[in-house]
Amino acid sequence: MRWRSPHEAMIKIRPLEEQDWPGTWRIIEPVFRAGETYAFSPDISEEEAYKVWVATPSATFVAVDENNHILGTYFIRPNQPALGAHVCNCGYIVDKNARGRGVASEMCAHSQREAVARGFRAMQYNLVIASNEGAVRLWKKHGFDIVGTLPKAFRHPQLGFVDAFVMYKQLECRIADVG
Amino acid sequence: MRWRSPHEAMIKIRPLEEQDWPGTWRIIEPVFRAGETYAFSPDISEEEAYKVWVATPSATFVAVDENNHILGTYFIRPNQPALGAHVCNCGYIVDKNARGRGVASEMCAHSQREAVARGFRAMQYNLVIASNEGAVRLWKKHGFDIVGTLPKAFRHPQLGFVDAFVMYKQLECRIADVG
Repeated sequence: MRWRSPHEAMIKIRPLEEQDWPGTWRIIEPVFRAGETYAFSPDISEEEAYKVWVATPSATFVAVDENNHILGTYFIRPNQPALGAHVCNCGYIVDKNARGRGVASEMCAHSQREAVARGFRAMQYNLVIASNEGAVRLWKKHGFDIVGTLPKAFRHPQLGFVDAFVMYKQLECRIADVG
Repeated sequence: MRWRSPHEAMIKIRPLEEQDWPGTWRIIEPVFRAGETYAFSPDISEEEAYKVWVATPSATFVAVDENNHILGTYFIRPNQPALGAHVCNCGYIVDKNARGRGVASEMCAHSQREAVARGFRAMQYNLVIASNEGAVRLWKKHGFDIVGTLPKAFRHPQLGFVDAFVMYKQLECRIADVG
C-alpha cells in the first residue's frame, strides 16, 4: 500500500539534470554542514558533495513543486559490489523550508519503485543516526526494519558519540505481465 | 586477553610492501574468484583487486612465515566518512594452504591493536556471509557481536541468496603512558 501525502499532487519527482545542481547543493549543503544526519565532513567541498551525491551513485532525483522549485533530492546506488549489488542504498534530503509536506515520504516511495525497476531486491540504510527520530519513524512506516544497532558509530556535533541503525527492507519484485 | 596460536612464533605480521603484491594476489585471487566470502566480482581484474585491497585502504598488512612466505593479508580503512570515520573496517584472507595455523586469528588480533594505534574506537564488518561459519565463529571468539542480520544480502554462487551479518566490536582505547 502506498502512503499518500495530502500535498502529493504538488510534488513531482524526476531525474536530476545538470542545471538542477545549484538548487540541489543549496538544499544539501546546510545538512552536510550541520553534521547531524550524514557522516560526510561538515567541511565538505561542493565538488566532493557533487561526487558523492550525483557522480558516484547510479542515479539522483529531485522532488520539485509546480514551479520546478527543488524541495528535496535522493540518490540510489548499489550498496556493495557484484555479489551484494542486488541490495541498493539511498540517501534523502529535504529542504528545511519544505518539511512537513510529505516530500521525504514521496521520495522514499519513489526510490523503492525505482529500485525495483532497476532490479534491486532490497534496500539498506547503513547509518541511520539514532537521534534522527523523524527519519527512523518514517522509514519504519515505509516498511523498513531496524536490523542492527551500531553502538556509538556516529560522532554527533552536539550529542557526541551516538548509536546508528542499519535499516533494511526486502522489495517485492513484481513480474511484469507480458501481453 | 589475547588468543594465542600454537604456531604463533612462526607468523610475523608486517605492512605490505610493493614487492609483496604478486604473492598477495596469488592468495586473494582464488578467494575472489570463488565468490563465497567477498562481494567483489568473481571476474575482478588484478588492477581492480589492487585498488580495493591496497590502494584504497588506509593500510594493508601481510602475515609471513619464517621464510617471508605470505600466509595471509588484511586491510584496514575507515568504514564511513568523517563523522563515522572513528569506526574501521577490515578484510582478511588466508592462503588456503595455510589454514588451521591461526593466521586469521593472529591477523584479527593484530588489526585490533593497529586500529587502536590509529585512533579507531570500533571495528565493523559489513557483510559477513552467514554460510562462512568459520569466520563468524572466529570473529565471535575475538569479541565481535552479530549486531545485525541482512536477509538475503549476498548472492552465493552455490547457495543462492543467503543472509549476511553485520559484526561490530567497540575497541578499548588505552591511554599511553608518557614517561
